[in-house]
Amino acid sequence: MPALDFWYSIGSTYSYLTVMRIAEHCAAQGVDVVWRPFNVREIMIEQNNIPFAGKPVKSAYMWRDIERRAALYDLPVRVPAPYPLDNLPLANQVAVLGMAEGWGAAYTVETYRRWFQDGAPAGSEPNLSASLRAAGQDPERVIAEADSEAGVAQLAEATAAARQTGVFGAPTFVTGGELFWGDDRLDDAIAWAQHGSLRRRGR
Amino acid sequence: MPALDFWYSIGSTYSYLTVMRIAEHCAAQGVDVVWRPFNVREIMIEQNNIPFAGKPVKSAYMWRDIERRAALYDLPVRVPAPYPLDNLPLANQVAVLGMAEGWGAAYTVETYRRWFQDGAPAGSEPNLSASLRAAGQDPERVIAEADSEAGVAQLAEATAAARQTGVFGAPTFVTGGELFWGDDRLDDAIAWAQHGSLRRRGR
Repeated sequence: MPALDFWYSIGSTYSYLTVMRIAEHCAAQGVDVVWRPFNVREIMIEQNNIPFAGKPVKSAYMWRDIERRAALYDLPVRVPAPYPLDNLPLANQVAVLGMAEGWGAAYTVETYRRWFQDGAPAGSEPNLSASLRAAGQDPERVIAEADSEAGVAQLAEATAAARQTGVFGAPTFVTGGELFWGDDRLDDAIAWAQHGSLRRRGR
Repeated sequence: MPALDFWYSIGSTYSYLTVMRIAEHCAAQGVDVVWRPFNVREIMIEQNNIPFAGKPVKSAYMWRDIERRAALYDLPVRVPAPYPLDNLPLANQVAVLGMAEGWGAAYTVETYRRWFQDGAPAGSEPNLSASLRAAGQDPERVIAEADSEAGVAQLAEATAAARQTGVFGAPTFVTGGELFWGDDRLDDAIAWAQHGSLRRRGR
């Protein structure tokens, strides 16, 4: 089955639009998704890439754009969501652990829902524990493990892999050696996974 | 007839994809296009918005992304094109004059073609005079007028209007009080112009 890597970082705003729909959307097109959380903030700081801080006009546009696109996808949304996240690293350390243990996608969806629909920042309480419980996990056990030296190292490894792949922002889709940046490129990535071109089937 | 304002700046890379197809694409959808050249560099510097300078990974992606999307639109392209342009202001002073005189769209298409297909920078010779001649104009007369105090002032007025509208990058489409940034938002803007939502007809 064709497949794509879904590189994301809990903390990226546009990733809300992807996280909430990618599983169903790709399944409907017969494309497998590999969820790959990493620390996008670390890479963007390295690359002097500051998307919204100190840019009020562009930031206001971003929230309106997300609001319009959420409506297109029939997703509830409350904008602006709290941004930037205080605990971006922890949110993603938990996600990396969750991917290794099989509950990472469920946790990611739960934490984004609380962040973008209820206004509770991901990576902080009460969002973090509530999302873990909703994903069937014991928050105490998970947070201790994710925030250990090993947990920190695992996120660093994931981020190194993203950097090595050429990822510079989130969300990013990688398939067949091609990189597609942005939620609005998901259908391009699916088309590429299916037949190595941007053209949709039937066009 | 529904209409959209097409804010662009000769100097924007992604605008190549729009300039070469917007007239035909919007006509086919029954949407009028008002071409509005401005100085995007001035606004981006004001807003501390530096898209590609000093960002080699993101820049490499941008060129590959343009190459892939040009193939989708059946547009020839030679990437990377010379970037940034030395004479961005003059290129757009000429465009503003051309819009007032009725040959601005033709000039814009001609100069982008030479820039992105032949590797000759817009706003400089031989591109500038060749594009003006192809648009039926006398280069000597046009360049003198566009580069006069009045020509400079007219571009400044156009840029002030863009700023006032909330434009922060190019290309941008504005319709019904909504702003859409990026070539990849053209179909969203068309849908909004037609019926005030992002949904395409028939969906």
